Amino acid sequence: MNYKIIANIIGFLIILIGFFMLLGIPFSVYYGTDDIPALLISGLSTSLIGFIIWILTRKSEKKEIGKREGYLIVTVGWISMALFGAIPFIVYGAIPNYTDAFFETMSGFTTTGATILTDIEVVPAGLLFWRSLTQWLGGMGIIVLSLAILPILGIGGMQLFSAEVPGITKDKLHPRVRETAKRLWGIYVILTGTEMILLLIGGMNLFDAITHSFTTMATGGFSTKNASTAYFQSPFIQYVFILFMIFAGMNFTIHYLAFHGKFEFLKMNTEFRFYIIFIFVTAAVIAIIHLPHVDFHWEESIRQSLFHVTSIVTTTGYVSSDYENWAPFSRMIFFALLFMGGCAGSTGGGIKFARHYVLIKNGLLELKRLIHPRAVIPVRFNGKAVSADIISNVQAFFIFYIGLTVIGAVLLSLTGIDFITAAGAVATCIGNVGPGIGTVGPVSNFAHLPDVAKWILSFYMLLGRLELFTVLLIFSPAFWHK
Amino acid sequence: MNYKIIANIIGFLIILIGFFMLLGIPFSVYYGTDDIPALLISGLSTSLIGFIIWILTRKSEKKEIGKREGYLIVTVGWISMALFGAIPFIVYGAIPNYTDAFFETMSGFTTTGATILTDIEVVPAGLLFWRSLTQWLGGMGIIVLSLAILPILGIGGMQLFSAEVPGITKDKLHPRVRETAKRLWGIYVILTGTEMILLLIGGMNLFDAITHSFTTMATGGFSTKNASTAYFQSPFIQYVFILFMIFAGMNFTIHYLAFHGKFEFLKMNTEFRFYIIFIFVTAAVIAIIHLPHVDFHWEESIRQSLFHVTSIVTTTGYVSSDYENWAPFSRMIFFALLFMGGCAGSTGGGIKFARHYVLIKNGLLELKRLIHPRAVIPVRFNGKAVSADIISNVQAFFIFYIGLTVIGAVLLSLTGIDFITAAGAVATCIGNVGPGIGTVGPVSNFAHLPDVAKWILSFYMLLGRLELFTVLLIFSPAFWHK
Repeated sequence: MNYKIIANIIGFLIILIGFFMLLGIPFSVYYGTDDIPALLISGLSTSLIGFIIWILTRKSEKKEIGKREGYLIVTVGWISMALFGAIPFIVYGAIPNYTDAFFETMSGFTTTGATILTDIEVVPAGLLFWRSLTQWLGGMGIIVLSLAILPILGIGGMQLFSAEVPGITKDKLHPRVRETAKRLWGIYVILTGTEMILLLIGGMNLFDAITHSFTTMATGGFSTKNASTAYFQSPFIQYVFILFMIFAGMNFTIHYLAFHGKFEFLKMNTEFRFYIIFIFVTAAVIAIIHLPHVDFHWEESIRQSLFHVTSIVTTTGYVSSDYENWAPFSRMIFFALLFMGGCAGSTGGGIKFARHYVLIKNGLLELKRLIHPRAVIPVRFNGKAVSADIISNVQAFFIFYIGLTVIGAVLLSLTGIDFITAAGAVATCIGNVGPGIGTVGPVSNFAHLPDVAKWILSFYMLLGRLELFTVLLIFSPAFWHK
Repeated sequence: MNYKIIANIIGFLIILIGFFMLLGIPFSVYYGTDDIPALLISGLSTSLIGFIIWILTRKSEKKEIGKREGYLIVTVGWISMALFGAIPFIVYGAIPNYTDAFFETMSGFTTTGATILTDIEVVPAGLLFWRSLTQWLGGMGIIVLSLAILPILGIGGMQLFSAEVPGITKDKLHPRVRETAKRLWGIYVILTGTEMILLLIGGMNLFDAITHSFTTMATGGFSTKNASTAYFQSPFIQYVFILFMIFAGMNFTIHYLAFHGKFEFLKMNTEFRFYIIFIFVTAAVIAIIHLPHVDFHWEESIRQSLFHVTSIVTTTGYVSSDYENWAPFSRMIFFALLFMGGCAGSTGGGIKFARHYVLIKNGLLELKRLIHPRAVIPVRFNGKAVSADIISNVQAFFIFYIGLTVIGAVLLSLTGIDFITAAGAVATCIGNVGPGIGTVGPVSNFAHLPDVAKWILSFYMLLGRLELFTVLLIFSPAFWHK
């Protein structure tokens, strides 16, 4: 293991994190909030620590980054971002407890959106900007991770879903990753900017428009308001959110191709079709069956259903109404939706539509195989047969996902958390959604959970965000034996 | 499809079912209960209907039973048993509603043990005997199904777990099945008789000893007492139950080999080791962590933990104390245990230890495969490498199991059932356990659920009992196309 190069890259990452902390200062100045010293101290000291690590590890004999180094950089990188990113909250005192600050920051960088803040609106502007920015940066990281790095590492069938990305091959990591990152980030920035302009047109102020477009495109879900997006009751703004949540939950290669006028890809993309149909059909069904239970107008009923189905399914986690109380069955339906996840190659977390598609299709074909045991019946995805290795990998992913969710729920129960809250909290954290059910439901937060539960859930956010295997590998003995 | 031979076999089965209904009459006579006419009418008319079906379909041109006929016979057979087996409850009036009677009988023949009876002790002896007998007969059916029929049909990796059964090959169904059935049933009868004698020694009367040994060996869980097995507070009787639940949850080939003095098989049997270790470790952990929450003596704490872990894990479902209230976390732990299941080739239902073992092992090896992508790293079971086909089949089984459980929980929610009860009811029915959590918990029953929920749950009992695929196949278009 080439620890020096790992530490060098992590050091560079920490320098950047420190720098980004300073970006909220203009808003602190504009709103006259008192968080400027805290942001300056946190940002500069973080960058300094990063710089020391970077300078000490600069002279590495080998410049080669192998697979195993890749896994470690990703996992340690995300943990470092959360460890250092929590500093401004502590220094200012907005979150006095480090466990809480770490939870909040991990929730940011993993684009989960679960929060321990009981009063968001007392947090000063610069800090709130930093809080939203953690999600936007996390989203940037995830796009490159899922479309450029994980496919090379062979994680969870990601090689399948990213085969269409220009410039991705099973080659050396370095030069291609940089090229892909630039292309995808360009799109990410353009989409964020477009949403921001639309939110401004909808009547939001600049600060809210920027922070919310950050957390939409990251499928993060942090809001600057205590009532989350329910604060903005304008239907126009809610439709903008719905549209951009759907964009954020799409494979970014689709955006890339669309920007280059190649719309034919939409037609043949299996996952995209499944994703769009699922969202609209589920929203329609919920709108119809909950209508007798709520006092919504029919347009509002459709909008609220679509908003929350999109919000949960894309793993954004925005809340515009207490969906748990829409009808007796809402809780179960929204719990089940926590397990969907956006598309592969999006900023969304969770199991993801591509995997669900492969699993459902393979399950149905398994029935066919029982009747025709000698026939070779492959699963087709985007018009191509999926290899048995990838199917097996996707199956193993799903089984790990469910198994780890059950283990997590049992562990949370042991800390004294009730059944529904434990199940909801683990499912929403491993799925990087944000709100759960029970006492961590859409109108509550995670503040009241015991500290040990917050550490467990922080770990689950990381697990889910890094597609399980990246983190699990590091715990496997085989990883450490050469 | 050779419908004639299918109907002929089903007809014969119905004749038998009618005959078995009469077996409780001696107890009706002894206890002087008034259910003799009901049993006579039900039994004779059932047999008559069976006889008519049998005689009308006797002359089939082809005697061949293919795979597809096999699937249909199994599924239609189990449904017919429940349809006709419900008649005595209706005729006597012990269960006035056919939905309830069907649910109770399906719960019997699938050895689930979920009940809609709110007062079991008012049901007359002959009917209670029939109720217990449905489970014992269901258990008989399941042993032959899982060890002789499903392996030939290639269901859910069962071919793997039964490879050690004498006389099983991938050959024609007919002669071998009969031979295997005889051998396994002999053991089933001997074990049931032994338990009965021990229960008599423990102080039970003959009626209770017979009915409870029936429902233990079937991992069924029906009791003749309102308080379930909590009625028998003798530690000796409880230890007898624990021992025979463990026996019932074991692969019956192990019993077969043990009866022939071949104990070396115990040492190399992967599933058996996993099963025994899991039960004792889990019981020990629960005993330790629940001790501060309950007013049990330490021996009673261990006994109660062992009793309930064994009861749930083997999918028996006997209850000797309200484990849901032992501690805040009990509900989650016992919910998770609903997903274990006994060993393959036992009378237990659920996912089963062999499958859990293969899934866990394969998951861990998947991590190893990511690091060494070119290495071929097989899963070993009973000392042999498991083929990729079987692993894929087991994975598909698990994914179907979880997916169907989620769908079932959503459907139950739509009928207005609360989250915890819906999750518990589906999990306990597809796992053929019996008691769930929430309002279908260990000290409650299923009577208060809406009718549609009872039909859904009856279907789930059948699904679980027939290892999912047997039933699902019939819904697949490929099954009906030649």
